[in-house]
Amino acid sequence: MKTKQYHVEFEPIGRRGECPSDESLLEAAHRLGIELVSLCGGRGTCHRCKIQVLSGKASSPTASEQEHLTPEELANGYRLACQAYPLGDCTVHVPAESLTAPQRTQVEGQQVKVTPNPPVRAYNIEMSPPSLSDLRADAERMVQALNQQRGVSCRSVDTEVLRGLSPLLRSWDWKAQLSVRGAEVVAVLPPASAQLGLAIDLGTTKIAGYLVDLGSGETLAAQGIMNPQISYGEDVIARLSRVSRSPSGDTGAQKLVVEAIDRLAADLCAMIEARPENIVEAVVVGNTAMHHLLLRLPVDQLGRSPFVPAVSGPMDTKVRDVGLHLAPGAYLHTPPNIAGFVGGDHVAMLLATDMPRRNGLVLALDIGTNTEVALVRNGEIASVSCASGPAFEGAHIKDGMRAAPGAIERLRLVDNSIEYQTIGGQPPVGLCGSGILDAMAQLYLAGVLDKSGRLGDHPRVRSRAGQREFVLVSEEERDGRPAICITQGDIRELQLAKGAIRTGINVLLESTGCSEQDIEEVVIAGAFGSYIDVSSAVTVGMLPPLPLDRFHQVGNAAGTGARLVLTSMGKRSEAQAMARRIQYIELTTAPQFHDTFIKATQIG
Amino acid sequence: MKTKQYHVEFEPIGRRGECPSDESLLEAAHRLGIELVSLCGGRGTCHRCKIQVLSGKASSPTASEQEHLTPEELANGYRLACQAYPLGDCTVHVPAESLTAPQRTQVEGQQVKVTPNPPVRAYNIEMSPPSLSDLRADAERMVQALNQQRGVSCRSVDTEVLRGLSPLLRSWDWKAQLSVRGAEVVAVLPPASAQLGLAIDLGTTKIAGYLVDLGSGETLAAQGIMNPQISYGEDVIARLSRVSRSPSGDTGAQKLVVEAIDRLAADLCAMIEARPENIVEAVVVGNTAMHHLLLRLPVDQLGRSPFVPAVSGPMDTKVRDVGLHLAPGAYLHTPPNIAGFVGGDHVAMLLATDMPRRNGLVLALDIGTNTEVALVRNGEIASVSCASGPAFEGAHIKDGMRAAPGAIERLRLVDNSIEYQTIGGQPPVGLCGSGILDAMAQLYLAGVLDKSGRLGDHPRVRSRAGQREFVLVSEEERDGRPAICITQGDIRELQLAKGAIRTGINVLLESTGCSEQDIEEVVIAGAFGSYIDVSSAVTVGMLPPLPLDRFHQVGNAAGTGARLVLTSMGKRSEAQAMARRIQYIELTTAPQFHDTFIKATQIG
Repeated sequence: MKTKQYHVEFEPIGRRGECPSDESLLEAAHRLGIELVSLCGGRGTCHRCKIQVLSGKASSPTASEQEHLTPEELANGYRLACQAYPLGDCTVHVPAESLTAPQRTQVEGQQVKVTPNPPVRAYNIEMSPPSLSDLRADAERMVQALNQQRGVSCRSVDTEVLRGLSPLLRSWDWKAQLSVRGAEVVAVLPPASAQLGLAIDLGTTKIAGYLVDLGSGETLAAQGIMNPQISYGEDVIARLSRVSRSPSGDTGAQKLVVEAIDRLAADLCAMIEARPENIVEAVVVGNTAMHHLLLRLPVDQLGRSPFVPAVSGPMDTKVRDVGLHLAPGAYLHTPPNIAGFVGGDHVAMLLATDMPRRNGLVLALDIGTNTEVALVRNGEIASVSCASGPAFEGAHIKDGMRAAPGAIERLRLVDNSIEYQTIGGQPPVGLCGSGILDAMAQLYLAGVLDKSGRLGDHPRVRSRAGQREFVLVSEEERDGRPAICITQGDIRELQLAKGAIRTGINVLLESTGCSEQDIEEVVIAGAFGSYIDVSSAVTVGMLPPLPLDRFHQVGNAAGTGARLVLTSMGKRSEAQAMARRIQYIELTTAPQFHDTFIKATQIG
Repeated sequence: MKTKQYHVEFEPIGRRGECPSDESLLEAAHRLGIELVSLCGGRGTCHRCKIQVLSGKASSPTASEQEHLTPEELANGYRLACQAYPLGDCTVHVPAESLTAPQRTQVEGQQVKVTPNPPVRAYNIEMSPPSLSDLRADAERMVQALNQQRGVSCRSVDTEVLRGLSPLLRSWDWKAQLSVRGAEVVAVLPPASAQLGLAIDLGTTKIAGYLVDLGSGETLAAQGIMNPQISYGEDVIARLSRVSRSPSGDTGAQKLVVEAIDRLAADLCAMIEARPENIVEAVVVGNTAMHHLLLRLPVDQLGRSPFVPAVSGPMDTKVRDVGLHLAPGAYLHTPPNIAGFVGGDHVAMLLATDMPRRNGLVLALDIGTNTEVALVRNGEIASVSCASGPAFEGAHIKDGMRAAPGAIERLRLVDNSIEYQTIGGQPPVGLCGSGILDAMAQLYLAGVLDKSGRLGDHPRVRSRAGQREFVLVSEEERDGRPAICITQGDIRELQLAKGAIRTGINVLLESTGCSEQDIEEVVIAGAFGSYIDVSSAVTVGMLPPLPLDRFHQVGNAAGTGARLVLTSMGKRSEAQAMARRIQYIELTTAPQFHDTFIKATQIG
């Protein structure tokens, strides 16, 4: 069948374009830069990409849509964008709730304290201009001046640097600042320029960026943004599957994240009145999937058992080979990955928390859609990856949402009423991860939930659409808008999530012959981990029952680790040595994995 | 003034496109891939880009056109394409004589004889597939197998190679052939693949390509093509000036030559049923301007006194950073340049003729638009560059042409008649370089030309358009078509050309304190040098008067040198060591340069 082109207009955003008849409205929206939510990667199972066709003709609703949309919705043109294809020019309304919400990002983390020993060093030199009696080529003149004036020997000058060199040296009157990495000149800047490094913690959901002075090691600016790749699916597996199913050569997912990092770098530079050309080295840490998608490495094998990475070693890639627009000769360094689901961000977190030097028994977790857990015994590290899922990000939870304004982030059951706090003090619109965890703990402590997770009787428990739910904020309290509840189904999702994390902890303890009570410290890293009430996490059994003073929430340790790797060659080597020594345990092949998991899903 | 777009159609080629009103018809033609001749780089001085506007409106003829086109031509819409701009939709006729002619290219040269010691080596390995009990990443699995099975240690795998690796290893059932350069894997091919190298002699006018088996060193295929960059100007200075005047970021000149090399590589591969992906290393030799244009290095400073290169050292650049489509991780190696007008092709020629190892006094020349001359005394080399100009390529000569079918390549004055031979035995249409040289020598020997170059009386000498000319082929002999003549003006051009070359030779002799008669051998390299009658060159005084058995015409020695550098790391080092030792003499700063030059323009 011949592909036709139709004109599709998305409202109220006012974005429009030509869309082929074999492209779903979800794909069309993403192509036009509209961040429609898609948790399932376009398979019609998450029902988050709801849109309304206001005028024009689209394909008929699929079975999945007829099952999950109400007859009223169907009658009013509501569709799942991933299931609908244009059959003529269309006007489409995108409801706010179908858009990826802006969201808090954790970029704080402490200033990194390490003696700078950066991979790139700056040298200011002066050259004599060429003449009929001194016909040396520009590049050789520069490299010789560097050697004579600063005692530094270089073997090569980056090709892109050479492409701009001759007019620049002349316009700067034969004075310049050279950025040298190993034996290569990677940048030539005007005399006495800023010499910057960029550290990025590339999360599945969020990207944190730090601009660092490579000379002093000081962090000059920090900012967090959403990962726009989220339009390719909210969790790693959905995203990998979507990319694997793309026609080969489709680099859309990579482009999205590269453009986001480019914008982030430009924004960070603008904060300190610098330019991206001054960024002469970049470090990105992320899970293995984010790492592979950024570097455009193959991911098909990463999404199928036995889930092996294409590359696990550290990489030094020219930023231009990734598509980033920093100093044209700059390198992007990525620390090693450990396994298919334990990436360089885990290594960075362990580095930032100084795990190889710790005495005693320490547990370190980075909680997210995928949770990495390390058990460290006198510096020896064993790690597992737990598929904790996106429940704590608010996904698959009836009234769940991300940590955005209006999310209930803390709550308490007092007698029969609920006290709560929302992000930004806004009227409540849903529950984010820390609120969900509190709710579960409070219901268990009040005896409303039993160990098995069954929701018992309580004045606030009711039945709706065939399932029991606990009303946190009622319709009356919301002036007639739908109540905010936690359902029996939500509880089951949370049991799976927290069970996965606890299983990881237990398998690590079993494999090293240690007991819970021997754990001297629990380090909780990551944005979600920093916001949770630890006692709630202990109450529901996500974390082991230890005195609360043994727990330390350390914020974005992966971002801190990225800055260490950026500014210190010593830390970079340490990360590599540590990665080689980490013992990776594949959870699903651990003995009694299934029994351990079933037990761990119990509450308390 | 606002730029408008007009539709311009070029006949009889049938190429058409939208052309902005501020783009000359020459630029428009080049952009559309029409190889209109332009010797002057679009300055309106060579009058070679003649076209006819058949319909539509163009800008008014300029002073240059009114001076050089006849009133009839102007009345019939003839224009110089570089001077004419569209003022509306146009139809334009391109006469055949305004198109770059196909032309013989010299690719013969002897088979290279050297023990292969290539920069890239092939290793076949087998890997065990990943499993839940062996979760190593694909890249690490491969590098470890290489180390265990072949004892080769690699530190890195090229990023582009990694981007294709995972599906390929699986489709080849975990068997592969690795191409290793230094400590880097630059290509991964199916088991037992061809391992090819590409050597290119990149001339201003012609490109010669050689496909070489890197394992055996054998040349598998060779082919010559025109350098399409000729549409940017026929000589180096015109081309540099045109590129310098282009808006920054205009990489059209580079793209033309890169696409030509890509096509040449594909054609060479097709001859032996291989694919460009099998080419794991490339070497290009060329003059400094061609080198810089290929690598997209700055050329502005190369076209202005003191004419310094951006880079003179050897370079190893990823072929993808140049835009070539060979094995994606392959490198392009370029041997060192010596000066602004003495490039890596000169180094390659000296290497191929084994100059560093020669005893006694040897003179080596590569004659072209720019002629490089080296004087070698017991292996010590001094070199100069002579601006011999394009007269021997047929440019600036009334009936001159390149060495294409119908060109008179040899001639003799016998009594009062002319005997001649044309390329391809076709009816004569003009004179190529070797024919021009013979004509000059024959006229001098017959006493028609005196030492000063004045054309005396002879039955075949006549006056036309205010200047004297010697009729080589008369109107009658051409069935009424215009006679083929050599004019007094042509003789003056040739005196400048041959004088430039002889000046270079004389300055080298003076600077080393040697005399002509001490020269034991004269090596003449290059396409033109291979076709000339050496005795004619000696007669007119282009070459010193030595016994003819001291002269050796060696063909495309630069191409031979390129193959040596491609297949032997020993020869590659030798080229670099030699380049560092070459004493470059700037001709125009030599003592008595002007007197020497005036004397050298005399005939005999």
